[in-house]
Amino acid sequence: MDPTTMIGLIGGTLTTVSFFPQVVKTWKTRSTGDFSYGMFILLMTGILFWIAYGLLMHSLPIILANMVTFLLISIILAFKIKYR
Amino acid sequence: MDPTTMIGLIGGTLTTVSFFPQVVKTWKTRSTGDFSYGMFILLMTGILFWIAYGLLMHSLPIILANMVTFLLISIILAFKIKYR
Repeated sequence: MDPTTMIGLIGGTLTTVSFFPQVVKTWKTRSTGDFSYGMFILLMTGILFWIAYGLLMHSLPIILANMVTFLLISIILAFKIKYR
Repeated sequence: MDPTTMIGLIGGTLTTVSFFPQVVKTWKTRSTGDFSYGMFILLMTGILFWIAYGLLMHSLPIILANMVTFLLISIILAFKIKYR
């Protein structure tokens, strides 16, 4: 694997993994009042564009990171909708 | 501008702008208890790797989006540190 892809995958892994402690915290507390709905809508739409960009750029880090992040953010949003 | 870069810039603008309603909400409420510190550390380190990846890939969307996002997340973190 070339060093550039490696750096991208490290970045992608970190930014993706960053949502895990948030999912765990939200799972435990069921508290999501501090999150903004506007953030979810913009973030998730943006991530879909990033996935398209990653496919067009043939960039594995962009595709992978954004797909997993989309899933994790969906979980947090589901908690916000359920326990608002 | 080629369509691929355009799609990347739309994605970058959306995911970056998504933090604005969050910054505004946090600014107003001063409430950051629902955010996880672990998320901030991983997210910000990951973003630095993304910026490096963007520079190596000569990808304007990746560089721009991540620089602005880093700044916005720093603001939310500053509120969390100040009003914990």
